[in-house]
Order: sequence, then C-alpha cells, then structure tokens
Amino acid sequence: MIEILPITGIPEVERDADVAALIVTGLTDAGISLRPSDVLVVTHKIVSKAEGRFIDAADDRAYREAVAGQARAIIRRRGDLIITQTHHGFICANAGVDRSNVPGDRAVLLPLDPDRSAHLIRMKLKQATGLDIPVVISDTFGRPWRRGQTDVAIGISGLEAIADHRGRPDAEGRIMDATEVAIVDEIAAAADLAMGKADRIPAAIVRGVDWSPGSARATDLVRPPHEDLFR
Amino acid sequence: MIEILPITGIPEVERDADVAALIVTGLTDAGISLRPSDVLVVTHKIVSKAEGRFIDAADDRAYREAVAGQARAIIRRRGDLIITQTHHGFICANAGVDRSNVPGDRAVLLPLDPDRSAHLIRMKLKQATGLDIPVVISDTFGRPWRRGQTDVAIGISGLEAIADHRGRPDAEGRIMDATEVAIVDEIAAAADLAMGKADRIPAAIVRGVDWSPGSARATDLVRPPHEDLFR
Repeated sequence: MIEILPITGIPEVERDADVAALIVTGLTDAGISLRPSDVLVVTHKIVSKAEGRFIDAADDRAYREAVAGQARAIIRRRGDLIITQTHHGFICANAGVDRSNVPGDRAVLLPLDPDRSAHLIRMKLKQATGLDIPVVISDTFGRPWRRGQTDVAIGISGLEAIADHRGRPDAEGRIMDATEVAIVDEIAAAADLAMGKADRIPAAIVRGVDWSPGSARATDLVRPPHEDLFR
Repeated sequence: MIEILPITGIPEVERDADVAALIVTGLTDAGISLRPSDVLVVTHKIVSKAEGRFIDAADDRAYREAVAGQARAIIRRRGDLIITQTHHGFICANAGVDRSNVPGDRAVLLPLDPDRSAHLIRMKLKQATGLDIPVVISDTFGRPWRRGQTDVAIGISGLEAIADHRGRPDAEGRIMDATEVAIVDEIAAAADLAMGKADRIPAAIVRGVDWSPGSARATDLVRPPHEDLFR
C-alpha cells in the first residue's frame, strides 16, 4: 500500500527560511513519524522563496523580461505562450517563472540548482531526524498533446530517477524491452493529489514506494537532444 | 491522506473474462471495502485482453503491421521508434500495441473505446457493490523531452478529467490563470506506484482524492491540433 501524507501548517515562506526545519515542525504538528522508506516531496515554490529567488513582476513586461532571463532557448512561441528550455535544461512554459501564490508584485523563479536544493534539505532532515529520506522537489508542467498539467520532479536527492525494467523478465518470462518508469515523476504527481493548488500545502510524505537509493539528478530526466524528436 | 491499495491475486485474463467480477473478487480477497470516494484504476492490458484485442505478433514484421493498422497518423519515426496518433486520438509510441506480459506470439491492442470500457466496468461494479465508483483505465506512455514513461488515463468514467483552478483565488487571493490539473493522469501515475511493471498487479484503488463527479472522456485530454505546438 502507498500512502501520501500532506504536511499542513507550513506558513508563508520568505527569503532565508529554513525549509527543512519548517518541514520537521510540520511533521511533528501533523503527528507524522518518518519511516526509512518514505520520500519527501516539496513543491519548488517554497524552496525558491527560501532561496530568495524572487523577481519583480509588477506588470506583464517585467514578467516577460523575467521569462527571457531564465530561458536558455525558446522552443515554441504562440501569443503569450512561450515554451522554453530553462538554463537547467527543463522544457516548460515561461521558463518556470510563476506569479501564483506569490505575495506582492513579484514572481518566483526556479531554484538555481534544484538537485542541490534537494540535497541540502535531505542533509538537514537527516541531521534533525537521524533518517536519510530521499527528497523530490516538484513543479507543475504542461505537456504537448495532452491537456492539463501534472507535477514532475525538477530536483532530487537520494534515489534513482528511473526504475529500469529493461532486460528483466515480465510476468510471462518475456524480456521487457522498453519499460523505464520515470518513478520520481510519478512520485511528484502522486504527491500533488494530496496538496491541492489553492491550499497552502507545499509538501507531502509519499510512503510505501519501492524506490532505489541512488545519486541521480533530476536533469538526468531531460532527454538529450539526439534522442529527442520534438525540439 | 491519499491511499493507494493494490488489488492483487487477479489471474491471467483471457478473452471474455469479466474484469469487474475479477476486481470484486480481488477486493474481497484483499479485504478492501470500497468507499464512495474511491477511484478504481485498471491497466488497459487486462481490459484489452478481456475484450479479445489480441493480434498476431510472431515476428517483427507482424508487429509493425499491427502498429500500422492501429495508427491514424505517424507523428515521428526514427529507426524502430514510431510515434503515432491512435484512432482514438492519443499520441504514443507504436500505437499502443504492446508485446510485454502477453502469453504466446501475440500482442495486445488498446481497447476500441476505452471510455466505454471504463463505463461498463463502472456499471458492473455498481451492480455488484451498490457503489458508483469512477473508473480510470491506464496505459504507460513516454513523453517528449523527459526520459522514462509514466502512466496516464486512456479511458475514464464517472469523473472530471481536469481539475480546473483557473479563475479561482490562490492562497494569496490572486486569481490563478493557468492551472488546469490533469487529475486523472495524476491518479493513473499514482496507481502505477502500487502496481509494479513485472508483477501481475493490474488494478488499484486510489482513496482520498478530491475528484469531481462528471462525464468527461479521456479523449477530452487530447489537445486539439490548433492548440498543439508539437505535432
């Protein structure tokens, strides 16, 4: 059985907040005791805020300039919709610059190095709790071809990004030839179900997933250009 | 809290099997009592098998012919990799024709009308249990730009496909302008975490999700061509 436990009660995060400490308090208040097989999912928004990744977005022009500043490349553009590649390599709308749930005339950028952010939260959590829990930092991305958005992993620490079933026998004994599950993206999507966009629930514990310890980076999930048919 | 309960013990499914009855038995054996807010997720593989959607795939040529027969359009092709649009409208590799976990020299096609298949399972389940539980039929799709695959919804019955937060105030009172969560895809991805590719766990109950009753079709998730920048 999988359980997804929302971590409620985390206050509005400003620059220099200690995200790991807020999460430890939230866990205690919610009566959640961490287990060694848990995964912590944190939406990037509070990580970015704690890292001071704010930018002025008082008007649309300032916002567009912020997007341009965060994009390594423009993949497609139509009207106000700009599909970009961020400097990390992620392909998403508006270079991840986000105005929702941000106080004042500001927008929030993605963390500079989300894998490093995930690593730091993991290390602080380990110091505070004695448990080495993998951390996934999530963001909400659109997809080509399919309407609506889903949460995906943009920063990870302590686990493999992909559960690779290639070369393993399936239930029929046939070797599976094309099954690489993006398990950290499924973990991020599952956590989003417990968070809710309009509520202030920026983190969740995902319990019971059969993840593998590892040192993958979320940028490992970016398909290299020579493998990518859609750039 | 969200819970994802795998439905174990479902035997190999052949043509004319009663998927709803197998699930009712599986739920009983697993000691799972359905609740009104549950969602049932079923991998398309057992639905397709029960509907007799087998095709000969004794060699690669037969397989390629099966793929060609299921594709309405070829979107991209490179070597053995063919990205197709299926006759339902879904864009995926190999028109959803799948050789893994299929006994004999056969492959399995997608259900002819997965939304209808979901509806029939939902009605039978209602007859058997008295509860009207939404049903999501899932498949494993790759994505452009990101490595690895995730489960998505290809057939749904009884719930809205997208949780539309546009026009609602966020936690800051600001109107959210671009948040449409593909909730049925997140439900499918979450369920996959409890299933495991090499194990024979073809269904799961997802409990505690804040879904809305509705009559959406999974094909509603297909982005219409004029909205799609990547075809």
